[in-house]
Amino acid sequence: MRDRIKVGIIGAGGYGGCGAIELIYGHPHAEIRVLIDKQDVGVPISEIYPHLTGFCDMPIMAPGDPDIPEDLDVVLFATPDGVGQKEAGQWLEKGVKVIDYSGDFRFNDLETYKGYAARIGRTPEHASPQLLPQTAYGLAELHREEIQSTNLLGNPGCFAVSCILGLSPAVKEKIIEAETIICDSKSGVSGAGKAPKPTFHYPARYENMNAYKITGHQHVYEIERELSLLAGAAVRVTFTPHVVPLSRGILTTIYARLKKGQDLKKVRDVYLAFYEKNLFVRVFGPDKPQASVNVRGSNFCNISLSVDERTGMLIAVSVIDNLMKGQAGSAVQNMNIMFGRDESMGLLRPGNFP
Amino acid sequence: MRDRIKVGIIGAGGYGGCGAIELIYGHPHAEIRVLIDKQDVGVPISEIYPHLTGFCDMPIMAPGDPDIPEDLDVVLFATPDGVGQKEAGQWLEKGVKVIDYSGDFRFNDLETYKGYAARIGRTPEHASPQLLPQTAYGLAELHREEIQSTNLLGNPGCFAVSCILGLSPAVKEKIIEAETIICDSKSGVSGAGKAPKPTFHYPARYENMNAYKITGHQHVYEIERELSLLAGAAVRVTFTPHVVPLSRGILTTIYARLKKGQDLKKVRDVYLAFYEKNLFVRVFGPDKPQASVNVRGSNFCNISLSVDERTGMLIAVSVIDNLMKGQAGSAVQNMNIMFGRDESMGLLRPGNFP
Amino acid sequence: MRDRIKVGIIGAGGYGGCGAIELIYGHPHAEIRVLIDKQDVGVPISEIYPHLTGFCDMPIMAPGDPDIPEDLDVVLFATPDGVGQKEAGQWLEKGVKVIDYSGDFRFNDLETYKGYAARIGRTPEHASPQLLPQTAYGLAELHREEIQSTNLLGNPGCFAVSCILGLSPAVKEKIIEAETIICDSKSGVSGAGKAPKPTFHYPARYENMNAYKITGHQHVYEIERELSLLAGAAVRVTFTPHVVPLSRGILTTIYARLKKGQDLKKVRDVYLAFYEKNLFVRVFGPDKPQASVNVRGSNFCNISLSVDERTGMLIAVSVIDNLMKGQAGSAVQNMNIMFGRDESMGLLRPGNFP
Amino acid sequence: MRDRIKVGIIGAGGYGGCGAIELIYGHPHAEIRVLIDKQDVGVPISEIYPHLTGFCDMPIMAPGDPDIPEDLDVVLFATPDGVGQKEAGQWLEKGVKVIDYSGDFRFNDLETYKGYAARIGRTPEHASPQLLPQTAYGLAELHREEIQSTNLLGNPGCFAVSCILGLSPAVKEKIIEAETIICDSKSGVSGAGKAPKPTFHYPARYENMNAYKITGHQHVYEIERELSLLAGAAVRVTFTPHVVPLSRGILTTIYARLKKGQDLKKVRDVYLAFYEKNLFVRVFGPDKPQASVNVRGSNFCNISLSVDERTGMLIAVSVIDNLMKGQAGSAVQNMNIMFGRDESMGLLRPGNFP
Repeated sequence: MRDRIKVGIIGAGGYGGCGAIELIYGHPHAEIRVLIDKQDVGVPISEIYPHLTGFCDMPIMAPGDPDIPEDLDVVLFATPDGVGQKEAGQWLEKGVKVIDYSGDFRFNDLETYKGYAARIGRTPEHASPQLLPQTAYGLAELHREEIQSTNLLGNPGCFAVSCILGLSPAVKEKIIEAETIICDSKSGVSGAGKAPKPTFHYPARYENMNAYKITGHQHVYEIERELSLLAGAAVRVTFTPHVVPLSRGILTTIYARLKKGQDLKKVRDVYLAFYEKNLFVRVFGPDKPQASVNVRGSNFCNISLSVDERTGMLIAVSVIDNLMKGQAGSAVQNMNIMFGRDESMGLLRPGNFP
Repeated sequence: MRDRIKVGIIGAGGYGGCGAIELIYGHPHAEIRVLIDKQDVGVPISEIYPHLTGFCDMPIMAPGDPDIPEDLDVVLFATPDGVGQKEAGQWLEKGVKVIDYSGDFRFNDLETYKGYAARIGRTPEHASPQLLPQTAYGLAELHREEIQSTNLLGNPGCFAVSCILGLSPAVKEKIIEAETIICDSKSGVSGAGKAPKPTFHYPARYENMNAYKITGHQHVYEIERELSLLAGAAVRVTFTPHVVPLSRGILTTIYARLKKGQDLKKVRDVYLAFYEKNLFVRVFGPDKPQASVNVRGSNFCNISLSVDERTGMLIAVSVIDNLMKGQAGSAVQNMNIMFGRDESMGLLRPGNFP
Repeated sequence: MRDRIKVGIIGAGGYGGCGAIELIYGHPHAEIRVLIDKQDVGVPISEIYPHLTGFCDMPIMAPGDPDIPEDLDVVLFATPDGVGQKEAGQWLEKGVKVIDYSGDFRFNDLETYKGYAARIGRTPEHASPQLLPQTAYGLAELHREEIQSTNLLGNPGCFAVSCILGLSPAVKEKIIEAETIICDSKSGVSGAGKAPKPTFHYPARYENMNAYKITGHQHVYEIERELSLLAGAAVRVTFTPHVVPLSRGILTTIYARLKKGQDLKKVRDVYLAFYEKNLFVRVFGPDKPQASVNVRGSNFCNISLSVDERTGMLIAVSVIDNLMKGQAGSAVQNMNIMFGRDESMGLLRPGNFP
Repeated sequence: MRDRIKVGIIGAGGYGGCGAIELIYGHPHAEIRVLIDKQDVGVPISEIYPHLTGFCDMPIMAPGDPDIPEDLDVVLFATPDGVGQKEAGQWLEKGVKVIDYSGDFRFNDLETYKGYAARIGRTPEHASPQLLPQTAYGLAELHREEIQSTNLLGNPGCFAVSCILGLSPAVKEKIIEAETIICDSKSGVSGAGKAPKPTFHYPARYENMNAYKITGHQHVYEIERELSLLAGAAVRVTFTPHVVPLSRGILTTIYARLKKGQDLKKVRDVYLAFYEKNLFVRVFGPDKPQASVNVRGSNFCNISLSVDERTGMLIAVSVIDNLMKGQAGSAVQNMNIMFGRDESMGLLRPGNFP
C-alpha cells in the first residue's frame, strides 16, 4: 500500500477547512497532519466544530509556528483571496504541493487576474506573479492532465463550477449561440462563509431571497475564460448570483439560444459524450429536473437539459453542493489527481436525506 | 359614508381565502358576509386558521346552502381552475360581481384559454365561453379602466404579476429586443396552496430548491398576451419557475437585450414614467437591489433595474408577495376599483419584519 | 377627537423600534414624531427596514440633537440595558412619559435589580435609583392600575411574559405546589435582536436548536418577583430558555404539580376567571394545543391547559410573539393604558398566515 | 475476512429505510441484498431518493415476491407498527434475524404492549405474542448482552432514546427523586416520517412550533419501563413532545430534583462512569451546552449536565439525530452487536456542517 498523503490545512477554522477535514477523515489514502489558522490558535478544531469531536480534535496552530510538521505532501489554503499568493511559494520551495481555494491562482495570466482583483476590491498587484504560469485551474473535468502534473492549483469558484460544467459541452461543440448565454445562479448561504453578517443573520435571511452583485460578481472571469478556451473565441456571459434561504447548494439555470438544427436529443448526446468518462457529472433529461438536495453532501454535479421549442432556447439546470463540488470536494478530487490516486477516493459517499 | 362592500368568499378555506379575510378584516369599506367551501363545512374559519380567532370566526357554509345571504356585492372565487367558470354565471345574474383567482377568466378569447387549459391538464372546453368577452384581466397597472367597468374579473397568476410588471415599460416603449426576453422566477411554497404534497413536506423542502415545469408553466400564456398587447406584436418569453424554501415571495430576474442607444438612465426613466401614477409599483436602481422580504406582507411590487454593459442586457429584478400582489392583495385592489373606492383601501400597511 | 399621542422612539434602528413603528403606523390615536439612535444617524428608517418604505421614511436623529421635537408625549426606549436608566430622568422632567424595553425599570427595589444586573454582567449600580419606586411593571394583565397612573414603565422581558401569564392564575389561586414549577421556554431568534452573531448566522442556526444560559437567565428575576407577589410568598422557578430555528415566537411549556383535589375542569375555570377581562390572553383546553404560529404577528398570549393524570402534573403551554406581546405589542398596550386609551387600540389585527 | 452481513430492508421507501441504506452503503461488513416495500414496486430506490443515484439503484420488490433472495442474514422492518408483528415470524423460521423499528417488539410482555397499542389507536391484540419473550430492546447502552444473543430486536423509539440515555445514570444510581422527572422533548419533523401532512406542509411549519400528544405519547411506555428496570421500582415520568422547524434532531431537556447531598461534580461522575465504555454517549458539563447540530448526521447522544442550585434541580440536555441514534443508526449498531462485529462499524463518521 502506498503512503498516505500528508495534508496540512491553512485557514482550517472556516467552512472550507471544515469540509476538507470531514472528507479527509474518511479518505483511505490521506490524513490530516496539521491545522493552521490565524484565529483560535490552540483551540481544538472540535471546539469550533463540535460535530468533529472524536473524529478530529487537533488544536489549531498559528501560521509560522516552528512545530508545524515538515513532512507535508500538500497544503490546502482554505483562505480568502490574498493569503495563498503570499505564502504558497515557501511551501512549494519545500516540495509541498499547494491547493488554493481563492482566486489567487485561478488565472495563469496577470492581466485576467487584475480584472478579477478589481471586482473584489483588491489592488491589481499579485504577490507572486512568477507562479501564475505554472498554476492549473482545478476543474478536473476540463483540466485533468494539467492538474496531474502541477504542484500549484487554483480551486475553482463555487458558482463557476456550476456554470462551467453546465455549459462546457454546448460551448465546445458549438451548438449554442455563444453571445446569448445567461447564467442565473441561486446559492445557499454557506457559500458566503462563516463570518456572521447582517444579511445572513437568521431573522433577516430565513424568509428572504435576493440577487446581489448584479453585473459585478468576480466568478464571471473564470467562467468566461474557461468557455472561451473551449470555444476557441471570446465568450461573454450574463451572470447573476442570488442568495436563497438554504445552507448548502447552488442551482444555476442556464439559458442560451440553440443553433439551427439542434434539438433535445442532439443536445443530450453532446452532453453525455462530453462527460462520458467523468464520474462526478451526471446528465439528465427534462423528465428528471434536478433539485439541489439531490447532490447535498456529495461531490456530484447534476445537469438536467430542456429545450424550449417555442423560443428555441436551451435551458440547462446545474446543481452542486457549493461546499463539496463547489469547494472542498473539488479540492480533494484535485488532490487525488495530483497524487496519482483514483479521482474519486474519499468522495464516493451519498449525502444524507432528509 | 358609503355602504360597506359585502363580500362572499368561495374556497375560503385555502390560502387565497385566508389572505382575503385578513385584508378585508382591516378594510374600512368592506366586510365579509359569508365563507363558502366544499370542505370543512360548519367549521369556524378560526379553527382552520387559528390566528383569525376573534377576528373572523364565521363557520364555513356549503356551496348552495340556502342560508347563504342574498345581499352580496361581490364574491371572490378563491378556487382552483374549473370552479369559477361553472358557477360565476349564477352570481352575475343576481347582480353580484365576481373576482376569480384562477385562470378561468384571465383570457377573453377561447383560443388562448384552450392553450392555457392544455398546460394544466384540463379539457379545452370552457363551461361559460359566453362570459369570456366581458372579463377584465385584473392587473390594475395595465387595465384599470376595464376593471372599473367590469363585473367579472380574472385575477392574475402570481408569477405573471411579477413578470408582467417587471417587463411592461420596456416592452411598451420598445427599448428591448422582445425576442430575447427571459424570466427566471423563484417562488416560495405558499404559491402551491394549502394541500400537502411530498415535494413540499418540510423535511423534503427545507434545504432544497428546484426548477419545475420547465418550458411548460401555464402562466406564460398571460405573460405573453399582456406583453404582446403592449408591444402591438406577438411576444414570446422563456419562462422558468423555481421553488425555493420560503413561504411567501416571488423574485423574478428578467433578462432582455437592450436596443442600441439605451442605457440605465433611459431605462429607469421609462420605468418611472410608466409607473408614475401606480402606488403599488416602485422602481429602484442597481444601488438598491430588492429582496423579497421588502414586500413580504404588503401589496407592493418592487423592481430594481440594472444594465450589464459588458453584454448589453437589461436585468430587472421584480419582487412581490405572491399571496398579496400575487393573489389576495390584487383581488382587494381590483375590488376597490370595481366599486369606485380608492385603489389602496385596506392595503396600506407594511408587512412585519423580521 | 382627542389629540394623537406623540411618540419618540430611542433605539429606533433595532427590532424593537421597528416593531413599534409598524404598530404605531396603524394606530388611530398615536403618531411617531421622532426616531433616535446612535447608529445610522441621518439614514431614513426605510433604508434600514425597506418594508417601511412609504410608511415611515423618517431619518434617524442622534441622541441630543437639538432638533428633536419638544412636544413629545412619550418616549419608548427600545434600547439595551443601561441606556434608559441614564436618560429617562431628563425626559420625565420635561413631562414626557417613558416606556423602557430593558430591565432598567422592571424592578422597583434596588436589591432585586442588583441580582438581575449581575446576571447580565453589569455593575450593580443603577444610574437612577431614585426613579425605581415610581416604576410600574408593564404586564397589563397584572398591573393595569399601576400602569394607568405611572409615568415610567419597565416593559417586561419576552420570556417573562410567556411564563408569568402561563402561571399567574395557578399561583394566585394556589392550585399548584409552587416549589415544583418548571418553565421550559423555546424562542425564535429575533428575541436576540438585530446584531449578527456566530450562533445566529443562518448556516449555523437553520437546522439547530439548543438550550442556553441554563440556570442563569436574567428573566427569572421578574418571573419570580411577579409570582411571589401573586402567591404572597417567595416562589422559585426552574427556567430554561432554548433557541430554535424560527424568527418569531416563544412557546413555554410549564410544569407544576397540582395540589390534591384539582382537576382539569377546575384548573381551566381558574384560568378563565382570572383572564376574563383580559382581551389579549386566551385560554384553551387540551383539545386545542396552541402553536406559536397562532399568535405570530399579533399581541395575544394563548395558553392551552392539560393535566397529566398519571403524574399529577399541570402542563400549560403558553405562546406569544416575542416581538409583539413579548415586546413592542406590550409597549403599545401599555402606552394605550398610560394615556387613557382603549388598551387594544392599534393592536387588533391578526397576523399573516402562512 | 468474515462474510458480509446480507441485509434486507422492508419498508425501504421510508426515511428509516433510506437511513439504513446510507449507512450500510458505507459499512465494511454488510451489504444490502434486497429492498422491499408495498409502494413503488419496481421503482429503483434512487428514483425515490435521487441522492442515492450510483450508490444504490436497486428496484423495490413487493413483499412476498418469489425472487426475494433466500440467503439473507437479517431483515430490518423499517415499517410502521403492525407490520413486523405479522411478518417477523416467517423470517425467524428461516433463520433470518429481525430488527423492527416500530413498537411491535419493544415490549416483552403483552400487558405493557397493550397500553402502548392503545395510545396509538391499535387493538390490544398482538399478532405474535409468542415471540415477545425472546425480544431484546435495542438500546445497546443498556442491553448489550441481550442484543448479542437475540434474533429478534425492537429498535427503540426516537424520543425514548434521548430520554432514557439522559436519565439512566441518575435513575440507576438513585441520585434524583424519581417521582419528579420531566422530559421536555423537541423534535425535528423527519421523526414523523415521509408522508406529507397538513401540519408538516412547509408553509405551515417553517415558522411554527407546538407541543403535541401532551400526556399521551406512546414512547412514555418504553421510557418508564427502562427507568423502572434501572431503579428496581416503578418510575413514572411526565413527557411532552414538541415539534420544531428542523428536519433532524431531538433535544430533550430533562428535569429532576436531586437528592440531598448531590452536586454537579457527583452527578457528572455518575454519568461519566455509567457511560465509560459506551462510545456513542458523550457527557459534558454546563460549560458545553449541547446543540442538536453537534450530532446531526452521526450516531452520538451528547448529554450536558447542569444543576440549578437555587431550586435543587438536575437539568440534563440530551441531543441525538432522530434518524441516526434515534433510528437507523441504532439499528446498524444493534445489527453489529447481533453479528459479533464491532459495535461502531459503519457508524464512525462525523455529520456535515453547516
